[in-house]
Amino acid sequence: MNKHPPALLLIDVQKGFDHPRWGPRNNPQAESQIKRLLEAWREKGHPVIHVRHHSHEPNSPLHPDQTGSHFKEEALPLASEVVFTKHVNSAFIGTDLEQHLRSQGITALVICGLTTDHCVSTTTRMAGNLGFDVVLVSDATATFDRQGLDGNVIKAEEIHRVHLTSLHGEFCQVKTADTVLT
Amino acid sequence: MNKHPPALLLIDVQKGFDHPRWGPRNNPQAESQIKRLLEAWREKGHPVIHVRHHSHEPNSPLHPDQTGSHFKEEALPLASEVVFTKHVNSAFIGTDLEQHLRSQGITALVICGLTTDHCVSTTTRMAGNLGFDVVLVSDATATFDRQGLDGNVIKAEEIHRVHLTSLHGEFCQVKTADTVLT
Repeated sequence: MNKHPPALLLIDVQKGFDHPRWGPRNNPQAESQIKRLLEAWREKGHPVIHVRHHSHEPNSPLHPDQTGSHFKEEALPLASEVVFTKHVNSAFIGTDLEQHLRSQGITALVICGLTTDHCVSTTTRMAGNLGFDVVLVSDATATFDRQGLDGNVIKAEEIHRVHLTSLHGEFCQVKTADTVLT
Repeated sequence: MNKHPPALLLIDVQKGFDHPRWGPRNNPQAESQIKRLLEAWREKGHPVIHVRHHSHEPNSPLHPDQTGSHFKEEALPLASEVVFTKHVNSAFIGTDLEQHLRSQGITALVICGLTTDHCVSTTTRMAGNLGFDVVLVSDATATFDRQGLDGNVIKAEEIHRVHLTSLHGEFCQVKTADTVLT
């Protein structure tokens, strides 16, 4: 039984993911679902934790000198909410996130953000393996088309679906925002 | 420049993965490719690191009381080779693997084993994010069919292909055993 309410962990909800370099994306509703989750968490006074990516690549839309590194409007942190800055995919590597969760007695996480198969998957895997009880919100995450090893493009929706399947039941429970909010 | 030759990291090449509970698998050649890699590493005297999974679930074929927890014939460790035992997907969580690699001056890894989307992917992600230079051997790993969130089965080969695509260029370089061995 969790004594502490789950924390909402928002991964890389940053403007830079609107840059055309990433190509076609699935689930354009991700940001509106993230906003719904964030409003519900704030209303209940449950913990909200923001994670942002600062790339070391000067030309990346997520480099800290680029406006792309800024949070999207739907996920702007309040002054009272904690923000962790990471430089790799996992929010647990090079940050004090684990230490923060342990010190706050947080044992359960609800994860959303970008992108399904890179930073969201990596963070979800580590959270589960570190012993946290994780829900991943299927419609509050999204990814991009990627070129397969044979040169053929794999559509974002297929990548999204396959990754959620691999994560569900092994590292987390995958649920929709509606299910989480009811 | 790597001063130290890359270590071959074998993930969960254990008999328990032959149990019918896992369902249909792709790439039946994975073990023979793993054996080729292992023989080549031993011939060159390069470091070989074995990782095995010991499940806490009493009924798991990978529980240490089950013969399924034993290494497959193709990947039996020599007495001189190091073995790490893990209880979660990532070989870096709950083990001294990172410390071992740092202490040995190993900065590059060639990863193979089971399964592509669970323990191999999680270990590859963490290795890349921890700063290791990683090659993942596409034909020396494999996975199983999984039931998607909509109830439809996703074939092992599709899961394998999508996961390798998500990992390549972000966490590692994906290469065939032939490419690695030439």
